[in-house]
Amino acid sequence: MRERIQNIGLSIRKISEKAGKQDEIVRFDIGQPSFDTPEHVKEAAKKGLENKQGYSPMLGLEELREEIAKEESSKKGLEIDSEEVMVTTGGMGALYSVFSARLETDDKAVFDDPCWGPYKMISEVSENKWTQVQYWDQDRNLRPEAKKEIKEADLLVVNTPGNPTGYVLTEGQAREIAEFADRHDTFLVSDEVYHRLIYDKEHYSPAAYSNNYCIIGSTSKNHAMTGWRAGWVVDKPENIEQYAKVSRASTACPPRISQYAAIEALRNDSHVGEMSEAYRERRDLLVERMEGLGWDFVAPEGAIYAFPEVGEDSWDFCMKMIEEGVAMVPGEPMGPESDQNVRICFGSTTKEEINKAFDILEDELQ
Amino acid sequence: MRERIQNIGLSIRKISEKAGKQDEIVRFDIGQPSFDTPEHVKEAAKKGLENKQGYSPMLGLEELREEIAKEESSKKGLEIDSEEVMVTTGGMGALYSVFSARLETDDKAVFDDPCWGPYKMISEVSENKWTQVQYWDQDRNLRPEAKKEIKEADLLVVNTPGNPTGYVLTEGQAREIAEFADRHDTFLVSDEVYHRLIYDKEHYSPAAYSNNYCIIGSTSKNHAMTGWRAGWVVDKPENIEQYAKVSRASTACPPRISQYAAIEALRNDSHVGEMSEAYRERRDLLVERMEGLGWDFVAPEGAIYAFPEVGEDSWDFCMKMIEEGVAMVPGEPMGPESDQNVRICFGSTTKEEINKAFDILEDELQ
Repeated sequence: MRERIQNIGLSIRKISEKAGKQDEIVRFDIGQPSFDTPEHVKEAAKKGLENKQGYSPMLGLEELREEIAKEESSKKGLEIDSEEVMVTTGGMGALYSVFSARLETDDKAVFDDPCWGPYKMISEVSENKWTQVQYWDQDRNLRPEAKKEIKEADLLVVNTPGNPTGYVLTEGQAREIAEFADRHDTFLVSDEVYHRLIYDKEHYSPAAYSNNYCIIGSTSKNHAMTGWRAGWVVDKPENIEQYAKVSRASTACPPRISQYAAIEALRNDSHVGEMSEAYRERRDLLVERMEGLGWDFVAPEGAIYAFPEVGEDSWDFCMKMIEEGVAMVPGEPMGPESDQNVRICFGSTTKEEINKAFDILEDELQ
Repeated sequence: MRERIQNIGLSIRKISEKAGKQDEIVRFDIGQPSFDTPEHVKEAAKKGLENKQGYSPMLGLEELREEIAKEESSKKGLEIDSEEVMVTTGGMGALYSVFSARLETDDKAVFDDPCWGPYKMISEVSENKWTQVQYWDQDRNLRPEAKKEIKEADLLVVNTPGNPTGYVLTEGQAREIAEFADRHDTFLVSDEVYHRLIYDKEHYSPAAYSNNYCIIGSTSKNHAMTGWRAGWVVDKPENIEQYAKVSRASTACPPRISQYAAIEALRNDSHVGEMSEAYRERRDLLVERMEGLGWDFVAPEGAIYAFPEVGEDSWDFCMKMIEEGVAMVPGEPMGPESDQNVRICFGSTTKEEINKAFDILEDELQ
């Protein structure tokens, strides 16, 4: 067995395994919507079954590629053609294809601190180097330390809205980081899989200010479709051709039926507004309850996560609180500065569950 | 862009692109069943939609893992537990996970000559070395040249029934190659994705004679489910854990809805007999028509392919015959000894189409 694979830890699994064994528990640890895939999307999948379920074209069904191109073009200043779209087995398949196709063993990717843990895992499987640095200061300016790392790196991931923080870039930030990366020939991977789940702000795609980028998208979170594995990457056709080799070698092609569902989800998307309204209410409640505990946090502006500081070791805290009936994810694996933070997913729980969990936390902590 | 990725050719795509542009054409080049997924399997998928379409467990739905374990256990001498099964995004996802998790950059895989082209592509993306050698002599004995390569290699792929030849190992062959690999510590990847499509013989899994193996399986060909991407790998739980890291990094998890379909396909599988009876008839017709042309070939005993020698450069021949209305795949990318062979898929065509194609070939060649 390859050494680098054996060295990859699956530490967070400890949380879900422990949480899964408990009867009465609020699952803030699960990173996916509480909502099921909308009924009309499921109906479209059923209708899609009238077609022969043979291999999908390697780059995805043309109809879906066109819908994705339309969706991505609606972002400020972008004109995306379906030729620039490859459908993948989820956003993860898109990220993996880009990392594996682009980065040599000695090339370096840079991630924000904190960041979504799987970026590191993708790097480790795809066997490139990575580093993590906090991108933004409190005034939303790019930190000098971040500039230094971005300059030196081959690839930069910007994730807005961000997991695990819910942080959303302003137009100025999107422009600043994209232009800075461009100037230093660092390829921009703009991970926008939560771009429709934004509460008080607007979504600005850094890609709109870059000449050297790809966009990662997915139906998973925006449309409550995590189980379908329908994601995509947008890039120049000549780059798509290279990514497609990785996608082909690792999956052959994306699942066909999921693509029929994805077409419908993108075409008739009023469910997104409904779900994100519910998330906003949960976010408001969560913020209120976190304030009640006196926790230090930045209110999430998008996505479905909050990332409060809990004032003690994140692993100890999470393992303890699971026993009390609240499952959260330790911040430690998400970044060196986050070993006292925990990730709370408010997308996966109801308001009743949020209240129940915080009643428990209040009892325990006060 | 990574150099090794840029160097990967997609030469066979030339064939499907050229063939796709022609109105009247028999598509022997398409490597998938002409049959659609059986209706009862589609119905099971629809029923599966009543469940919430969230992420699947990383290793697949337990119910499916149990069905797979049962299916694999039915092979001589094997007792497989569901713990030893990981569901993947098709057989390709299984192969990629095994190659990427097991092989270091300098490790070597060995493939039969000819072999299914994507083994090489998987190696090139996963960045290990590979070599190709003809395994069997005309008397079905392991060739000395093959023994030499297997001894030196880290991983050996045995594909029975085989693509592109339709060759099926006897019990003696399955035993010989498995025991030889074991003795020399070469890990056996037993690719049995066509194991239910056998015409005059029985299927013998080399895995039954090995202590150091994995089995690659899939619903794609046996059940006419190529578009669903439901495959699997069977191995010891501690190895599955390592493969799972690659599977997770490249796909997150296998698509949920496809797993409901796969459960039904394995559970109620009378369709396999019906389809393989149709394939047998086509195979018989194809053999008769190839004999009529005086081509040199070994009659396919399983899978859905024949691999005749056509007496001229395989690329020239295939490009010429597409113009006449018959699309076949050149043997050249499948092995150094096969540059005058072509692959004919009889699984993708009707008997009428086979006759039509061979009427054309007779006109052209005689």
